[in-house]
Amino acid sequence: MSLRASIIGGSGYTGGELLRLLHGHPRAEVGQVSSRALAGQPLHRRHPNLRGVIDTPFCTPDDVGPCDVLFLCMPHGRAAGEIERWRQLAPLVVDLSADFRLSNPDDYRRWYGEDHPSPTRLGEAVYGLPEVTGDRLNGARLVSGVGCNATAMTLALLPLARAGLIRRAIADVKVGSSEAGAEPSAGSHHPVRARTVRTYSPSGHRHLAEVFQSLGELDLDATVSAVDMVRGVLCTAHVEPTRRLEMKELWRLFREAYRDTPFVRLVADRSGPNRLPDPRVLVGSNFADVGFAVDERSGRVIAVSAIDNLVKGAAGSAVQSMNLALGLDQTLGLTFPGLHPA
Amino acid sequence: MSLRASIIGGSGYTGGELLRLLHGHPRAEVGQVSSRALAGQPLHRRHPNLRGVIDTPFCTPDDVGPCDVLFLCMPHGRAAGEIERWRQLAPLVVDLSADFRLSNPDDYRRWYGEDHPSPTRLGEAVYGLPEVTGDRLNGARLVSGVGCNATAMTLALLPLARAGLIRRAIADVKVGSSEAGAEPSAGSHHPVRARTVRTYSPSGHRHLAEVFQSLGELDLDATVSAVDMVRGVLCTAHVEPTRRLEMKELWRLFREAYRDTPFVRLVADRSGPNRLPDPRVLVGSNFADVGFAVDERSGRVIAVSAIDNLVKGAAGSAVQSMNLALGLDQTLGLTFPGLHPA
Amino acid sequence: MSLRASIIGGSGYTGGELLRLLHGHPRAEVGQVSSRALAGQPLHRRHPNLRGVIDTPFCTPDDVGPCDVLFLCMPHGRAAGEIERWRQLAPLVVDLSADFRLSNPDDYRRWYGEDHPSPTRLGEAVYGLPEVTGDRLNGARLVSGVGCNATAMTLALLPLARAGLIRRAIADVKVGSSEAGAEPSAGSHHPVRARTVRTYSPSGHRHLAEVFQSLGELDLDATVSAVDMVRGVLCTAHVEPTRRLEMKELWRLFREAYRDTPFVRLVADRSGPNRLPDPRVLVGSNFADVGFAVDERSGRVIAVSAIDNLVKGAAGSAVQSMNLALGLDQTLGLTFPGLHPA
Amino acid sequence: MSLRASIIGGSGYTGGELLRLLHGHPRAEVGQVSSRALAGQPLHRRHPNLRGVIDTPFCTPDDVGPCDVLFLCMPHGRAAGEIERWRQLAPLVVDLSADFRLSNPDDYRRWYGEDHPSPTRLGEAVYGLPEVTGDRLNGARLVSGVGCNATAMTLALLPLARAGLIRRAIADVKVGSSEAGAEPSAGSHHPVRARTVRTYSPSGHRHLAEVFQSLGELDLDATVSAVDMVRGVLCTAHVEPTRRLEMKELWRLFREAYRDTPFVRLVADRSGPNRLPDPRVLVGSNFADVGFAVDERSGRVIAVSAIDNLVKGAAGSAVQSMNLALGLDQTLGLTFPGLHPA
Repeated sequence: MSLRASIIGGSGYTGGELLRLLHGHPRAEVGQVSSRALAGQPLHRRHPNLRGVIDTPFCTPDDVGPCDVLFLCMPHGRAAGEIERWRQLAPLVVDLSADFRLSNPDDYRRWYGEDHPSPTRLGEAVYGLPEVTGDRLNGARLVSGVGCNATAMTLALLPLARAGLIRRAIADVKVGSSEAGAEPSAGSHHPVRARTVRTYSPSGHRHLAEVFQSLGELDLDATVSAVDMVRGVLCTAHVEPTRRLEMKELWRLFREAYRDTPFVRLVADRSGPNRLPDPRVLVGSNFADVGFAVDERSGRVIAVSAIDNLVKGAAGSAVQSMNLALGLDQTLGLTFPGLHPA
Repeated sequence: MSLRASIIGGSGYTGGELLRLLHGHPRAEVGQVSSRALAGQPLHRRHPNLRGVIDTPFCTPDDVGPCDVLFLCMPHGRAAGEIERWRQLAPLVVDLSADFRLSNPDDYRRWYGEDHPSPTRLGEAVYGLPEVTGDRLNGARLVSGVGCNATAMTLALLPLARAGLIRRAIADVKVGSSEAGAEPSAGSHHPVRARTVRTYSPSGHRHLAEVFQSLGELDLDATVSAVDMVRGVLCTAHVEPTRRLEMKELWRLFREAYRDTPFVRLVADRSGPNRLPDPRVLVGSNFADVGFAVDERSGRVIAVSAIDNLVKGAAGSAVQSMNLALGLDQTLGLTFPGLHPA
Repeated sequence: MSLRASIIGGSGYTGGELLRLLHGHPRAEVGQVSSRALAGQPLHRRHPNLRGVIDTPFCTPDDVGPCDVLFLCMPHGRAAGEIERWRQLAPLVVDLSADFRLSNPDDYRRWYGEDHPSPTRLGEAVYGLPEVTGDRLNGARLVSGVGCNATAMTLALLPLARAGLIRRAIADVKVGSSEAGAEPSAGSHHPVRARTVRTYSPSGHRHLAEVFQSLGELDLDATVSAVDMVRGVLCTAHVEPTRRLEMKELWRLFREAYRDTPFVRLVADRSGPNRLPDPRVLVGSNFADVGFAVDERSGRVIAVSAIDNLVKGAAGSAVQSMNLALGLDQTLGLTFPGLHPA
Repeated sequence: MSLRASIIGGSGYTGGELLRLLHGHPRAEVGQVSSRALAGQPLHRRHPNLRGVIDTPFCTPDDVGPCDVLFLCMPHGRAAGEIERWRQLAPLVVDLSADFRLSNPDDYRRWYGEDHPSPTRLGEAVYGLPEVTGDRLNGARLVSGVGCNATAMTLALLPLARAGLIRRAIADVKVGSSEAGAEPSAGSHHPVRARTVRTYSPSGHRHLAEVFQSLGELDLDATVSAVDMVRGVLCTAHVEPTRRLEMKELWRLFREAYRDTPFVRLVADRSGPNRLPDPRVLVGSNFADVGFAVDERSGRVIAVSAIDNLVKGAAGSAVQSMNLALGLDQTLGLTFPGLHPA
């Protein structure tokens, strides 16, 4: 029997990807999809790839009825105040905003600059990155989304962090334009966003909070630069290890850390143009490619990760978390391997 | 029981797409994949998206044994001379090169400038565009591939051509860089191919031969321009009709022509940025989007089609044809809806 | 002695290009530059390339005082109603909007759907495309700007139109995102504008009015498609000639037509990737590249032109017209040859 | 009187840029331009922007006669062995290859893995980055070119390095495709190079040798990633300073360091999309934009620089060095300010 999955706020990019993934999910079916602004209009107005694929029109949020899973894709800060309302509609709620990612209200205040409106619910929510929270997602009833840059940083650093091998690290993150969402803005205007290579967040990116929660406090900072791509994150993490590490040991560490994670691929070939991760080959896919190299001179480790920010960094991890929460195979609906070339 | 599908010449872009599609096909499994140059190396050397997805290494062409379907992805002109050899390996051979697209040896000579080496086989091959050859593909044992630009032109013009409504037409075709294949060349060098908008084939494109074979002789010419995209074809066909046509009648004509074709979508909205076809939303998908408009002043009809040249214009139509030849549902393995944004 | 040139509405893309060109002009100097929204802020806020190059801040329109040349870069429809005010400030006014391009008030009403507010001034303005209006620009006191697509179409067709050789023609025009201006919009949002190939104006483009005014009434329609480029127009004009034309005669016709126009280059080589015009090599340049080919089968002539929409299609032609109006060498300040690769 | 400047190996990208710059130089004129492969063909075959601008055809290297300045644009390793021959032709030779950048033969051996063929000439050559070698270029007779990535790293770090404030640093460098030159290759094939974000040189980039020579030995490593751009380098240098630095002091340090360098602009605004350097606005320009920020938490300094790799990172610095060597104003021929948007 199909699981009925509905979406609150389905007109944006993560909403569109959720629709695509749920439509292809062998156990789920798309229920209702709300958009206050577009109620009554066909989904393909905002998601032209779904024309003729999903025929439901957008409804209003008030129209959304009970379902098996409810995904919240509202702007940051909205879900926190309305969470009780939505939880009444479904036994499993997955909120893709930033509202329930941090379990500690103090962390929320520190990084988001205000008090959380539902602090008691924070502890209840499970962070929706299965590579980090794993079994804790089984049976979860409130699951948070993930920050896309946080996901990239976490997956690049996790094996080293868990082994206590990071003395200090800097994540130099390159991101595409879809991170900023579907709303036009001066910075995303094509004539100026095309061909840009711009370090727009030199330090202190909010997604660090999620990394610290997942990996423990680290001497880590993040610098984010916009590059000319629509989807994708490349995280180049410059790590000063606590001791000398050779490639062989890195292979062992990363293999062990990701032994049971079906969506992390290790990419650290000796040669070839694709010897290290590149988000270009991950567009549409839930894979996270992770690689590494060592600087012979200094011993610095360069850990590299690539994801599609809208899939592994948003809708894909959300569906993967849903699968785990409901006791399904975590790969269901997520087997699209990406395209090359594209 | 799975159908075993093997590929001769699987290191190029259409080979990679065939691998992706066959891997996701519910009734097929990937058999052997040959590449003379890369025998012994893992597939992901050339198809990095398939790393960890398909683990077979490339083999030599001589290694390829009997199978249920054999796809030939060799350079144009190679399959024609070797076809008997390959047909001994499988009851169904699908050749994606240009060698068996034209059923008339005279047409081949006229457009390709030389005699066909296996002229008697030409009549046996069925042109692999199901929207054109339909039932003729049922039970076919030799199926040709399609030209990507031919596919775009044919699908834009088919409803008008079948109704005898085209007095004259010009197809202004815009294409991406993957059309030229995986081999580096001066014209595909990134510093000069990026951002280009270049009319490189002003007239007389070879793919016209396929259009004439499919739609009958027409007063039609094609102009092809390269634009900055990797995958995709947009065909803007400027049609002078034999009589005045209004939008309503166009809707009727196109609806009827494509009533039974699951992969053609009609896209001719009254407004919105996606009111006419755009190959951007079709990357990876087997859909062909077809739309139309009328110039009020002159009565000219503008028929527009968009496809992914590597899918509907190559590997996708090949798999769709395989499905029909084997009596399967033609949509099997081809349900990926494309991505937005991407 | 330097000519003082000021700009009303200098925060947009054509304003920025005017600033760049005037700054490098050996006989001109940048006077005042107004922007109601940005008054008091440095120019480099909107024109980051000019940081440290031009130090004037934006002023309000009311601050602008008398000068030798005044350029108006306001939204379409604004200059028409205020023209008397601005003409009091300078003996030469160049209006880059669409307001004074059509000399016949009836044409204006037909194409813009409303009455022109200063119809008596229309006849006074000289159309600012020197390749068309030539000597009429000498001594002009009110000069209009040009439509970028109109410029591309006009220059592709002019030699054939003047010789009365066009029976019918269709201009298939490919354009970049900067045509839509500096204001963010849904259609110019990077995630959806990148990689698009979209026929957004199938017929009846307004710029046809300028072409008809320049070349006489023609059986001509235009179809405009957006492609992934920031600057640039490529016009591929499909011309059915009144009689058979060979390449040799085309060379003669185009050479003669453009004998005295320093910014039109003929590009119709026998081979090479740059044998026909490509706007990629014209970014920043005032050149218009024009080429042609003949379809052997049908005799159709394919006339191709490429320009930078912000230079030859806007600010460059405006400066060139200023030069002519003031009796200067028309090439002054316009010698930047473009970049390759870029 | 004009200085006659000739070029050996003028068919590549730096040769093309030299031609463009020398053509616009008020005191220089283009003499002969050699290309062994293209001798006899017009320059615009390789430099389509120069069609109708410079009419000289390519000659053979043997045809090149005496001139005032000779630029060598040969592949790395060639000039070193032929340097005596070329110095006989001109009192000033500027070699844009890597052959004469390092003055110490031991450094050359260490970084290039072989002995330098003309070690005694190394000490004679002056490194052609005026921001570093300044007055030493006056009267120089043999000038080296610069590495583009070296230039970006050096200019980002120079003020901090000279003040002894760098404890350790990592330069995360993002580069465009023109860095790899005009020769097609697997890695520069458009279908795979477009949209790539690929860390291809995780550590130990050769250009570090130039940085160490210019700034003294530093605890510095470089990681280079390819992004989807044709021209441009963005260097994001992550610096751990020897003591806490505030923005005010950074402003003072950078202002002082670059007080007399007309081509370095400081870009560190408080807000706006262009508040830090972006190579997008520098295409075609000799400017280097340099900015900085401080991470409040850790005190890390992020120093950012952007250049056009073919201009400030190659041909532009070469012309600037020529100007200084000949006692001319260093800005001659280099005043093009870049384009926006583009």
